Amino acid sequence: MNVANLIETTLESALRRIDDPAAPSGLTAAIRHAVFPGGARVRPRLCLATAVACGNDDPRLALAAAAAIELLHCASLVHDDLPCFDDATLRRGRPSVHCAFGERLAVLAGDALIVLAFEVLAVAEARNPTRLAPLLRQIGRSVGSPHGIAAGQAWECEKTIDIEAYHRAKTGALFVGSATAGALASGGCAGDWTRFGDLLGLAYQTADDLQDAVGEVQVIGKPIGRDAALSRPSAVASLGVAGAVRRVKSLVQDAVASIPDCPGRASLIELVFTEMRRFLPRHVELRAA
Amino acid sequence: MNVANLIETTLESALRRIDDPAAPSGLTAAIRHAVFPGGARVRPRLCLATAVACGNDDPRLALAAAAAIELLHCASLVHDDLPCFDDATLRRGRPSVHCAFGERLAVLAGDALIVLAFEVLAVAEARNPTRLAPLLRQIGRSVGSPHGIAAGQAWECEKTIDIEAYHRAKTGALFVGSATAGALASGGCAGDWTRFGDLLGLAYQTADDLQDAVGEVQVIGKPIGRDAALSRPSAVASLGVAGAVRRVKSLVQDAVASIPDCPGRASLIELVFTEMRRFLPRHVELRAA
Repeated sequence: MNVANLIETTLESALRRIDDPAAPSGLTAAIRHAVFPGGARVRPRLCLATAVACGNDDPRLALAAAAAIELLHCASLVHDDLPCFDDATLRRGRPSVHCAFGERLAVLAGDALIVLAFEVLAVAEARNPTRLAPLLRQIGRSVGSPHGIAAGQAWECEKTIDIEAYHRAKTGALFVGSATAGALASGGCAGDWTRFGDLLGLAYQTADDLQDAVGEVQVIGKPIGRDAALSRPSAVASLGVAGAVRRVKSLVQDAVASIPDCPGRASLIELVFTEMRRFLPRHVELRAA
Repeated sequence: MNVANLIETTLESALRRIDDPAAPSGLTAAIRHAVFPGGARVRPRLCLATAVACGNDDPRLALAAAAAIELLHCASLVHDDLPCFDDATLRRGRPSVHCAFGERLAVLAGDALIVLAFEVLAVAEARNPTRLAPLLRQIGRSVGSPHGIAAGQAWECEKTIDIEAYHRAKTGALFVGSATAGALASGGCAGDWTRFGDLLGLAYQTADDLQDAVGEVQVIGKPIGRDAALSRPSAVASLGVAGAVRRVKSLVQDAVASIPDCPGRASLIELVFTEMRRFLPRHVELRAA
């Protein structure tokens, strides 16, 4: 099975854990809507890539970590789309969860996804029980407070915003979490992979700003021009389109240079460049030329 | 140190984990507002009581479980008070989190509290790493979907409501989680304590309905008469005040009878009756007479 299918299958079996006819059906449906069909699944792919680079001696745990990370990412999107935040009506080309199921079920679906993510981790530790706590702490740190996704969104509520802290928390933290969780799931050392995750997160954030500025709704499946409309800080606003494209490429180069010595170093480098082509499409690059 | 102080101290040290001057200050303050000053801390007290009854051979883990459970409870209150749910302005005698900090920080504070709860568990497993996964699964089940708190709140969004499932999920599940987590943290068996937690949860829910119907705002620190105003199902509506009081007492008797053979059985029974006096105050009983 290829990586994309493995991720979908693992997410599917995670959702089967909550699929109970005796449960309130609206919540079950809202959770499913938040997870399927997915986006690019960039974070779980990164997590698995790092796990493979580190030897992948416990594939079940690595897959659980990847699924947990994607579930947490989906939860953050559902809450970020709420009327009190971005009030986004479209996500992945379909109505956002609060548009399809109402605000209450959107809040609860996000909550339940966060809980489910940690449960998914806890059912996969059988072969290496001592890896669970460090994995959980690493992933928790990347989504909670003070420097995870929740903190990132909370920067939007501050009078004075620390732009770097904002981006690092809102986007970078879960990239660091993805890379380091993959390493931890395979018995590697989180610290060796922090810089790699951090630089890829910055690259992805910059590419995302580019998509928002010059992408197409039908390609990215969500409204464009939101950064400008909401006066949000953006790499395009500060560097221009061409500058932002250059920055993505240089960040990816730095990320590749930071990869520690490990069994799968060469194929990981190849994979990183392939992924860059996915989140920095040719038409965006052409716009910058 | 007595149990009440131990719980506050453990919650305080959990919150120190997120208290970072480089974090967005609004979120940190909103999280603190959600946790301190606390309510009766019924759930962590139950968790610790069960842990003690089971021998309490890892007090640090039991305290972490108790704190995690209280943080999850606080998260559920913050989200339950949101405008799209109960739109409650008062909680524990002070403005609810969304009233004091706005809706966005209330959503994020709830999210961050859920994450923090699992992180707190994961930093306390050193002496018994193999207890972490079962603990996490047990606690996760009691707050997520399909039968935990999130599912409980989601029943309020269904066209037809299964009242028993609603109460069991919204209130009972975390009582089961508290009792069983205390047992698991002390190397006990979760299954031995499920019925105990379940019955205490039903007793507490019934007592809470009584407080809502005949309690006093200044005593319980939140608006009263909400069940009737929102046409929510309630034990008082179906049994009357006197019937509801009788039901609390009979549920507590059944709970006590269900306590398995364990080192601290006698003192646990005493504690349960003391707790009942806290959540079924004399003035409520007098109203029923």
